Amino acid sequence: MIFSQAIENLINSLIQLPGVGKKSATRMALTLLQTKQTAGEAIANSILQAIDTVQNCQQCNILTENPLCNICQSQKRNHEIICVVESSTDVIAIEQTSNFNGVYFVLQGHLSPIDGIGPDELSIPKLQQRITDNNIKEIILATNSTIEGETTAHYIATMAQQYNIHTTRIAHGIPIGSELEYIDQNTIVQAFNNRATLA
Amino acid sequence: MIFSQAIENLINSLIQLPGVGKKSATRMALTLLQTKQTAGEAIANSILQAIDTVQNCQQCNILTENPLCNICQSQKRNHEIICVVESSTDVIAIEQTSNFNGVYFVLQGHLSPIDGIGPDELSIPKLQQRITDNNIKEIILATNSTIEGETTAHYIATMAQQYNIHTTRIAHGIPIGSELEYIDQNTIVQAFNNRATLA
Repeated sequence: MIFSQAIENLINSLIQLPGVGKKSATRMALTLLQTKQTAGEAIANSILQAIDTVQNCQQCNILTENPLCNICQSQKRNHEIICVVESSTDVIAIEQTSNFNGVYFVLQGHLSPIDGIGPDELSIPKLQQRITDNNIKEIILATNSTIEGETTAHYIATMAQQYNIHTTRIAHGIPIGSELEYIDQNTIVQAFNNRATLA
Repeated sequence: MIFSQAIENLINSLIQLPGVGKKSATRMALTLLQTKQTAGEAIANSILQAIDTVQNCQQCNILTENPLCNICQSQKRNHEIICVVESSTDVIAIEQTSNFNGVYFVLQGHLSPIDGIGPDELSIPKLQQRITDNNIKEIILATNSTIEGETTAHYIATMAQQYNIHTTRIAHGIPIGSELEYIDQNTIVQAFNNRATLA
């Protein structure tokens, strides 16, 4: 052990961060201790404060320290359109486009019976409640394009059908800017099936 | 702002870590809050504890929470050979080779008069004290192979001369496993000048 206990502990705890290995953790630890002690204290305090106060938005599950998240609170958003996604990072990806003005529902995962994750674990009853309580015009299913994501989308679509709510799925096709020769077969099949009329 | 204040604060403080941008910081923050709250608390506490207790080894400047670092304390090391490096990360690089059994002296930088960094800022008087107090047989200068690193090495070599101490500089040449055509001219010149007799 080159370093003393406190430094080794710090390095080993920083390795828990996503995308951080032994080498980056060591670099982070030394930087925090040598030149950025104030930043280190700020990081420690903001972690503790966030863990202490942050929970899920009562309405949509986005992480927030308030009862409702910024998006659910906003008067500028269209609360009649709900976009259903698997995780908070999906919300970030969609918000960065500035293209969607509705609200969200974060499932925090996807249906996976083998792991014991059913509708209750994804708080689908909460989504159902929201559909019955409010005047929802459309549900946009933006779960991932994986087998689990598709299954989850299908399950929610079936549920929404009972309430006669217009339910849509984000389009599958060729990503903008990409070359056809590098696209997988399934995507090309989907792109042909979902072709749009130009003229 | 997609997220609430506590989460934004956490993201903005994590950006201070070396090699972490907005995107990684967001991913780290969400991971800590969603699935790794215990890890988050461990990180926060180990940062605070390390900042509170860690200082420089009284003898060699390596970061440690003890008066002397593990290497200076060790009976297995040869305390008559001091390797002088610019930073604690250099110590890690050398220790990983398991090839050097002496002790270290970390300058915490290099001579840079334009930035107001002279011998006192690099605690060179402390190194001088160590030379006069102890029975030092050799000083190995392993500062970086930059203009500042070379200047610093030269300065320390001149200082050590006064005490008649054998002073060496780590070799410059072609890195093992590399191809000559990609090596810069200065390195090739050094490699020719420092050529060794084979037979």
